[in-house]
Amino acid sequence: MTTPTKADRENGSRFLPKFDDNGLLTAVIVDHETQQVLMVGFMDQEAIDQTLTTKLAHFHSRSRGKLWQKGETSGNVLRVQDILVDCDQDALVIKCEASGPTCHTGVTSCMYRRLEDGQLTPIDT
Amino acid sequence: MTTPTKADRENGSRFLPKFDDNGLLTAVIVDHETQQVLMVGFMDQEAIDQTLTTKLAHFHSRSRGKLWQKGETSGNVLRVQDILVDCDQDALVIKCEASGPTCHTGVTSCMYRRLEDGQLTPIDT
Repeated sequence: MTTPTKADRENGSRFLPKFDDNGLLTAVIVDHETQQVLMVGFMDQEAIDQTLTTKLAHFHSRSRGKLWQKGETSGNVLRVQDILVDCDQDALVIKCEASGPTCHTGVTSCMYRRLEDGQLTPIDT
Repeated sequence: MTTPTKADRENGSRFLPKFDDNGLLTAVIVDHETQQVLMVGFMDQEAIDQTLTTKLAHFHSRSRGKLWQKGETSGNVLRVQDILVDCDQDALVIKCEASGPTCHTGVTSCMYRRLEDGQLTPIDT
């Protein structure tokens, strides 16, 4: 296969994920009903394949250097409802139904603080 | 300053952005009213500083290796309304008012296609 061009990625109907030098792209997880961003993770080809096959969000852990399924220990899985792809195919927005709190700290979203005047203040998620 | 611990980042009120090996973190731009994801970009310390100072979203271009202000040529700037920080402080959700189409292709959001059965299909953004 020839290397996809910018036009191939932007205009075509072919899914041609563009990975960075570490073989990763960004996956933004949003709640499929509220559109709230729940978490941001990274996927390699393996994580994408597993996500598509199982319809449960999988990621590549940069710190552990391996595949993980969100909720594999906590049970708080993310059931994939819809996947959107951006113009240059290096970012995905994955709309999910969350079966529990997404953040490992026990709250709905990992974005539980607002940056205000250089300080973080808690918000309800 | 000592290196921030996991607990410092997760629990504290201090903004301690965690950059990757390339000095970047992920910034998810969402429409402040609809919560729609408009684009995903990367910020280094300089882009964060410029964003906070000007209240206009700035990014670090990985391909060009330099700072850019969204809309610097098109005029389609992103006015920052709110910044959320995730648990480990390696991702930001930036709620913005977009002054025009965010995607360089001329549509509202860079996420203008859905992945379905291995193919991309256009959606209204």
